[in-house]
Amino acid sequence: MPAQVVNKDLQNERNKCTFNQEEFTLWWVGGEEQLKEKRSRETYFESQPEFQDKVPLHFASHQELYEETIRKATVIFSKVKKLLTDQGKYDAKNYVHFMEALLGSGFIKEGNPLGIHFSMFVPAIMGHASPEQQEQYLGKALNCEIIGSYAQTELGHGTFLRGLETTATFDPQTDEFVINSPTLTSYKWWPGALAQTVNHCVVMAQLYSNGKCYGIHPFMVQVRDSETHMPMPGIDIGDIGDKMGYKGVNNGYLGLKNVRIPRSSMMMKNAKLMRDGTYVKPSSSVLAYGTMVFVRVIIVRNMAQSLAKAATIAVRYSSVRRQSHINPELPEVQVIDHVTQQAKLFPLVAKAIALKLTSDNLWQMYERTTSDLNSGSLDRLPELHAIACCLKVVSTSDTATGVEVCRLACGGHGYLTCANFLNYYSLASAASTYEGENTVLLLQTARFLVKMWNQAVQGKPLMPTVSYLQNYVGKQVQQFPWSDSVPVIISAFQAVVANKLRLACQRIEQRKSKGFTPEEATNFTGLELTQVAEVHGRWFVLQSAYEMFEKACQKATTPLISVMQNLCKLVVYDEALRIRGDLLRFTTMTETDLVKLEQNYEACLMVLRPNAVGIVDAFDYPDFVLGSALGAYDGNVYERLFAEAMKSPLNQEPVNKTFELYLKPLMKSRL
Amino acid sequence: MPAQVVNKDLQNERNKCTFNQEEFTLWWVGGEEQLKEKRSRETYFESQPEFQDKVPLHFASHQELYEETIRKATVIFSKVKKLLTDQGKYDAKNYVHFMEALLGSGFIKEGNPLGIHFSMFVPAIMGHASPEQQEQYLGKALNCEIIGSYAQTELGHGTFLRGLETTATFDPQTDEFVINSPTLTSYKWWPGALAQTVNHCVVMAQLYSNGKCYGIHPFMVQVRDSETHMPMPGIDIGDIGDKMGYKGVNNGYLGLKNVRIPRSSMMMKNAKLMRDGTYVKPSSSVLAYGTMVFVRVIIVRNMAQSLAKAATIAVRYSSVRRQSHINPELPEVQVIDHVTQQAKLFPLVAKAIALKLTSDNLWQMYERTTSDLNSGSLDRLPELHAIACCLKVVSTSDTATGVEVCRLACGGHGYLTCANFLNYYSLASAASTYEGENTVLLLQTARFLVKMWNQAVQGKPLMPTVSYLQNYVGKQVQQFPWSDSVPVIISAFQAVVANKLRLACQRIEQRKSKGFTPEEATNFTGLELTQVAEVHGRWFVLQSAYEMFEKACQKATTPLISVMQNLCKLVVYDEALRIRGDLLRFTTMTETDLVKLEQNYEACLMVLRPNAVGIVDAFDYPDFVLGSALGAYDGNVYERLFAEAMKSPLNQEPVNKTFELYLKPLMKSRL
Repeated sequence: MPAQVVNKDLQNERNKCTFNQEEFTLWWVGGEEQLKEKRSRETYFESQPEFQDKVPLHFASHQELYEETIRKATVIFSKVKKLLTDQGKYDAKNYVHFMEALLGSGFIKEGNPLGIHFSMFVPAIMGHASPEQQEQYLGKALNCEIIGSYAQTELGHGTFLRGLETTATFDPQTDEFVINSPTLTSYKWWPGALAQTVNHCVVMAQLYSNGKCYGIHPFMVQVRDSETHMPMPGIDIGDIGDKMGYKGVNNGYLGLKNVRIPRSSMMMKNAKLMRDGTYVKPSSSVLAYGTMVFVRVIIVRNMAQSLAKAATIAVRYSSVRRQSHINPELPEVQVIDHVTQQAKLFPLVAKAIALKLTSDNLWQMYERTTSDLNSGSLDRLPELHAIACCLKVVSTSDTATGVEVCRLACGGHGYLTCANFLNYYSLASAASTYEGENTVLLLQTARFLVKMWNQAVQGKPLMPTVSYLQNYVGKQVQQFPWSDSVPVIISAFQAVVANKLRLACQRIEQRKSKGFTPEEATNFTGLELTQVAEVHGRWFVLQSAYEMFEKACQKATTPLISVMQNLCKLVVYDEALRIRGDLLRFTTMTETDLVKLEQNYEACLMVLRPNAVGIVDAFDYPDFVLGSALGAYDGNVYERLFAEAMKSPLNQEPVNKTFELYLKPLMKSRL
Repeated sequence: MPAQVVNKDLQNERNKCTFNQEEFTLWWVGGEEQLKEKRSRETYFESQPEFQDKVPLHFASHQELYEETIRKATVIFSKVKKLLTDQGKYDAKNYVHFMEALLGSGFIKEGNPLGIHFSMFVPAIMGHASPEQQEQYLGKALNCEIIGSYAQTELGHGTFLRGLETTATFDPQTDEFVINSPTLTSYKWWPGALAQTVNHCVVMAQLYSNGKCYGIHPFMVQVRDSETHMPMPGIDIGDIGDKMGYKGVNNGYLGLKNVRIPRSSMMMKNAKLMRDGTYVKPSSSVLAYGTMVFVRVIIVRNMAQSLAKAATIAVRYSSVRRQSHINPELPEVQVIDHVTQQAKLFPLVAKAIALKLTSDNLWQMYERTTSDLNSGSLDRLPELHAIACCLKVVSTSDTATGVEVCRLACGGHGYLTCANFLNYYSLASAASTYEGENTVLLLQTARFLVKMWNQAVQGKPLMPTVSYLQNYVGKQVQQFPWSDSVPVIISAFQAVVANKLRLACQRIEQRKSKGFTPEEATNFTGLELTQVAEVHGRWFVLQSAYEMFEKACQKATTPLISVMQNLCKLVVYDEALRIRGDLLRFTTMTETDLVKLEQNYEACLMVLRPNAVGIVDAFDYPDFVLGSALGAYDGNVYERLFAEAMKSPLNQEPVNKTFELYLKPLMKSRL
């Protein structure tokens, strides 16, 4: 960590820390090797002058921001390629890994316009191209001889894929596909880097052959000329405009008018189209499914990091900021001494860790399932899909909400762009919509739970993450025996899911018996179903956190064990209090138990208090990654706010030209 | 309303409307005269070409945005002044009224840098200047011969006013004050328009005379030269940088170094300083108190409007957007037909109306209390202050949250700046912090409630808004007899407040008995106290809405009565479900009652469904006020999104210069 003069209050907090921070950090990042790699990567990136912005990009115009972001992105690409080549490690896997770590670090706050090339275009080639096509495209893509995007979403169509309207019609005469955007709503809309950056694009379109539609398939389309970058014939392409976040990502639109591509440009790893127009089905659609799950695992992990960063900023600032007296004869206190502030921030620190542990757990499930897949067993895929859906929802919505709690806990200064909360909020909030809109995903999890409930009622065996439902089958609500031990509380969440699921299934049946179709009955029961799926996700988070903490405690030193146990309790109590109504309904919890739970929760805040700064320090985010005037390691909050303000272009001249142009005439005009 | 071709789905919604929309609108805006005035103002503003942006300002740089906003603000000022003069109506009151209506309308989305001149500087002169000083400043200020801001908040000090550090020290030798910013944290920070715009400022500073501090007082300081606009000697002034919202407001910082102003520049309407340095106390500090409450009334009203606008956008878009099937053989449905979507949006429509009715109720309370004040009675001021505090909190936090629910309910397109949700969110979110940080305000309300509870325990009479506490005094939790009629549910909220207040008071006493000071005991009970204050505010919202709806129903036609009754039920059920845990604790509500409440809630959604568009149309927001591509009256969502994208500067040339500069070299470089 840097050697600036540290704010006294913050130093005082650090002196209070009771545990070994390096021990925590090693656990948090996953081991010595990971920590070493992370720190060397950070040191490298921080040391490159071409990677820094001269003026913060939030002062730039839409166009300037794009141009500067492209400059940085291309410099970074070249440097990383050279670095890995020099180390003899340049291959697709290392490259994607390095770039992903870079993107995940939030180093380019405004979003990297080449990010989609590596996160979607290259993987699309790997996942959809036949061996010959990989030969043709993969090397060029990795080397950036072609730069690509992935275009699925349309102006009028998002999460519901079957609704996509773009068509790819096979012309047997010329052995080509003719690709068209038949309507305004079929224009591709949102793909990153599509607007001004890429020259290739994997386009998802409805495949037509011999008058028959075979559904959505991927096609490689060149959208701009390699030499001139001019749009290719039939291509209408451009920028969709300014957004809440990801401002540097250059999201674009794409209209196609009779664009002809050879048949061989259909990506034929899975489905194929023969020379005569015969369609050959893919052997299994399972792999696409796997990719979707993979992306959601990554989202959960990234959300944990974003929340941890926001909490770091807010906890440090709250230790430096002083406001209001508690005892009137003493000076104003550190904001972090107000219990209301602790109750805002400390559960979020614990939540960030719980989400990170959940993503570790989910990752293990994913790896198990993938290895099952490779040995031909698809049994656990639906379970993995169901849990990944609701975890994507819980992690994105809690992170978005949590970041805003952090920001508001920093008062007015949290509203300044240089505090960097808006950035974390925009990223988390976008993730609530992309890769499956959150409500739609909850309904997918719920559909699985309903199916499992019906299996349980029929006495059939259930998969591990839902096997607890078996304890609740039967017609009546079953009160779970409450106690305030952590594992019992976590099991109480199962009781809530099971009983709410029972009620939801009953409502669906009631509605069907009134003459609604099953689909209508399910739609009308949407509120109950989404609630059930969400609690199931929250149960999984708590269960994962509990198991992972237990495992970590087996190896940790005593002071760190205390810290971990308290964090685990805090996140469990916090979640339990949030669903106190359901716990009162479905467990034997009494009013007295509830008051006791509130007291236990408050006790956890008090225990965490002296280690609050210690824990966020141990997350080990360097200042350039946090990117916040409020959250820097040295706590020189006011000096940094002032320094950021000094960078405003408006402060570069004593009088703005608008004085002579507009203000002076106004002041002098008398009616 | 304009005569564009309306989207068919949206037209179909309008055909379903069961009530007279003009009747609703008249009620919503407050009468015929108000509606006429509102529409004529809107027509005028929309018709002025100089008021329009050529390119949307979200594409502009920080500096360009400021310069364009100042242009608009000065043009608008001149035009309005001329308009009112031509109509023979130009005086301070009409002017401020017109400007306020203009600002409230959201016409200048980025915030008006002259706004603070009218909303804070002119009122500060009216509230703090002696008659002679008013003579000196008021005319000039109204005429914009001087342009001013109001500087209270400092870099290190916000809501806790006593902590301000700026000093104004009387120098009896020269009959002047010497104003200083003794530290970095004492720099004024945040005042609107302070950075590059104003030449005068009312500065709040600690008054020192003869070595003694007399607390915070207002001083008129000239900060820039009237002819050159250069900062005056000793003045360090500039821009604090980019923010999440209010980007055009030109918030600034101000450091003062031995700035000398004559004694007569202290604003002496209330306190005075004599020639010999003798301090004369103000006769009463009540008026300042009144202003604070007034501002909070306005905030509640503005929040209601913001939420209604966001709901308008989301309801219209949800009627046009189609996604997913309900019944698989039918086409994709309008998103508004998904019950989960209805449950997001319809309660917000009802909430916006409830908040508006609450602000009407609060306004009446304010006027009663002011007239009491004028006749010398201060009795009800603490009650008004307490209710205004918690209503400011409930209205700002519910609006911020509600706007985000609307935005997310519009999927990816809600993320585009041209949807205009980010603007509404930024405004509501800022209001959670300014004019009293929300948690601090809840604690103020709670302090009042604790005092009232102790009075009730002692059998003393209580003020009207808290008289219900008398029914709950006694040591034990009292179960309120539940039924699902609307007035009974509203009374159940009283039971929740009273019982939670009882518990909080007990916790405070327990802690005091353990040796904590009263202030420490209160701090440790902060969570319980803030919760109590919030529920009290929610009770007041529901009670106000219920009474105001009842009153409106006495005059309304039958179809509108049905609509109003359903809206009232919806907002009450929705709030009740949110505190279901507390209702289970403190009322006789059973599991069966709760399921019934959920069913009643779902029934309200279904009843509202055919009138959803009818209601938001009847809010009567013209397109230019909504400012959203997704929410326009004609529902031509996709055409408008496309048209907005076409305005992007990046779309004005087929190839951006960065292709030759950065991308091509990258593509051609082979290692």
